[in-house]
Amino acid sequence: MPLALFSTATTSPRLGKVIGDRIIDLAEAAPGLPATVIEFLVAGESARQAYDAVNPDSPGARPLSDVHLHAPVPAPEKYLAIGMNYSDHGAEAEKLGLTVPEYQLWFNKQVSCITGPFDAVVLPKVSEKLDYEAELAVVIGKTCRNVPREKARDVIGGYMVANDVSARDWQLRTGTMTLGKSFDTHGPIGPWLTLDHEVVDPQALTVRMLVNGVEKQKANTASMIFDIYDQIAYLSQVMTLKPGDILATGTPSGVGVAKDPPAFLQVGDVMRTEVEGLGYIENRVVADT
Amino acid sequence: MPLALFSTATTSPRLGKVIGDRIIDLAEAAPGLPATVIEFLVAGESARQAYDAVNPDSPGARPLSDVHLHAPVPAPEKYLAIGMNYSDHGAEAEKLGLTVPEYQLWFNKQVSCITGPFDAVVLPKVSEKLDYEAELAVVIGKTCRNVPREKARDVIGGYMVANDVSARDWQLRTGTMTLGKSFDTHGPIGPWLTLDHEVVDPQALTVRMLVNGVEKQKANTASMIFDIYDQIAYLSQVMTLKPGDILATGTPSGVGVAKDPPAFLQVGDVMRTEVEGLGYIENRVVADT
Repeated sequence: MPLALFSTATTSPRLGKVIGDRIIDLAEAAPGLPATVIEFLVAGESARQAYDAVNPDSPGARPLSDVHLHAPVPAPEKYLAIGMNYSDHGAEAEKLGLTVPEYQLWFNKQVSCITGPFDAVVLPKVSEKLDYEAELAVVIGKTCRNVPREKARDVIGGYMVANDVSARDWQLRTGTMTLGKSFDTHGPIGPWLTLDHEVVDPQALTVRMLVNGVEKQKANTASMIFDIYDQIAYLSQVMTLKPGDILATGTPSGVGVAKDPPAFLQVGDVMRTEVEGLGYIENRVVADT
Repeated sequence: MPLALFSTATTSPRLGKVIGDRIIDLAEAAPGLPATVIEFLVAGESARQAYDAVNPDSPGARPLSDVHLHAPVPAPEKYLAIGMNYSDHGAEAEKLGLTVPEYQLWFNKQVSCITGPFDAVVLPKVSEKLDYEAELAVVIGKTCRNVPREKARDVIGGYMVANDVSARDWQLRTGTMTLGKSFDTHGPIGPWLTLDHEVVDPQALTVRMLVNGVEKQKANTASMIFDIYDQIAYLSQVMTLKPGDILATGTPSGVGVAKDPPAFLQVGDVMRTEVEGLGYIENRVVADT
């Protein structure tokens, strides 16, 4: 069952275990557990066992509908994202003058852009080309470096849904993409962390984006160009990956900038991002005030 | 006088005030002050006043040569760097097929690449094109967003010397540059933080790189294309900047990759990076073991 960061009108953010339509407050059900997802991942197997023992009859249960869900990992050390990693999206990106790279193309979303799974996304005053990107996000579970592909799954802590919200005008100004990917609020993630052992095959999940209820993107993670194990192997040749680090693993075709004519997000639009088995996040576009 | 993060054989990293060839342990001289640079910046004016009152006769003084200096900001939220921001370097980069951008070109150095001012830099087994970049680094002092250029100086906490060590083969694989800028140990900074009010004009400082004592880069920060105030104004249109965030403000011409023939760093080479008035950092290239 997934691990969520939640608050209520009277409590600050804390961890909970989601079971059906209820959430069990771990501060009550398992007070020995850490208070953040990163600390939970660092604690490893012992925390996992205590977590697994929490059940619907444990103290601290309340209706999920009564709580506010936060970004499960609000302050990771790194939030990296890979570009043009689904062949169909690569083809549409090439039409825009981008080149599908021979190598994995990584950029950063600034950690400061992370926002909650049901929080608002701001349409910046300085952008006219706000767009969505539905993605499977991998959360690293162990400090690691030089991880061989065949051991890459061992360092995964879990999975989330991510919307790599993008200001295309800013993104396309320079080859680094950085600023167009990093506006405040442009990193909604969640709704919770589904732990690795609860996902049979992360390369067999349907990823979908719906805007105002209309399906815009749909693909299976099986059609990634570089799968998540390749990604971890490649990145960890360069840098130490740490518990909580987020990897957004690419988006399928169907983004607004690639439509003819291009269709960008407007104030009031609602993006619903889904990954099979991981739940969904839903973010409304609001004006920049 | 600059603010350093230091340790000794018997103490964990703590803040010190550097006065001449001595360092005053603030845990002894001003025990009310915070223990990290970021907390010091957050504390603002009151911390500044207590800091200014520390003098050579305060308790806790010891020879600077007896301590190990650490990266002043070892774990900022963000480490951003601007590319091709000196016109002469832009010209040499264009010869390599890069395009001098119309807009500020920002990329990330991963926070995990940060290392100390006199620590080793690893020549990765997987790279044959290790290179240096001498830079003035700005450290943000206040949480801010949408800062007008004319108020940008108010949000600066201080300045450091940075070497934006780059694996050119990895950098040039994709337009985002990200991975070639982010190998572990490729972010030496320091030797300390010089507070903003102690620098008369950050746009009038000589930046130099010497490798094995031979000058390779030399320019004045006056010749930046986008000055640091432009940089803060532009970035803060996108994202909230926070105390401790590091901006590497560009490197002058003279990098190894642009030489004819290209000259890359080898094991044993010693890079000395200087910024006028801010001290120097010195980093030896070591093998990847």
